[in-house]
Amino acid sequence: MESAINVLVAQFKTFAGKDGSSQTLSKDEFQTLVASQLPNLVKNASDPSAIDHLMSSLDENNDGELTFQEFWQLIGKLASAHGGFSQ
Amino acid sequence: MESAINVLVAQFKTFAGKDGSSQTLSKDEFQTLVASQLPNLVKNASDPSAIDHLMSSLDENNDGELTFQEFWQLIGKLASAHGGFSQ
Repeated sequence: MESAINVLVAQFKTFAGKDGSSQTLSKDEFQTLVASQLPNLVKNASDPSAIDHLMSSLDENNDGELTFQEFWQLIGKLASAHGGFSQ
Repeated sequence: MESAINVLVAQFKTFAGKDGSSQTLSKDEFQTLVASQLPNLVKNASDPSAIDHLMSSLDENNDGELTFQEFWQLIGKLASAHGGFSQ
């Protein structure tokens, strides 16, 4: 499990480091990440307007950037749905 | 990233399936999972009383079982700390 967690942290950092703050995902970074890394788990992963909407729903403090914790909530929901958990 | 997410879901299910509900982790299942799967990320991973305390802090509805979402919050915190994120 630790190696899988490390992969998720490392991938987040790779995409977060492309522009602006290396600690957070900008909209462009998030769209690139979703399209390339979550093509099956995220519906309409390659549709910028859908991903724009998704990002707005995750960006709790509305600063246009996703923190690791905000991003983690998304993949938790995707994982939970994919795993067939009841919540 | 999807393969890493799938690993986490599959591992959770493997441990959750050992006794009782196959959708949630009992205290025994959680202790076994932490000791074997998160030995480096969780402090005192092999100390049952420390893990008992950790589980209580995660079990939001206090039913003695951890759901996938409750467990996901733990690994998000571990990952965030390990990754050096500011929150």
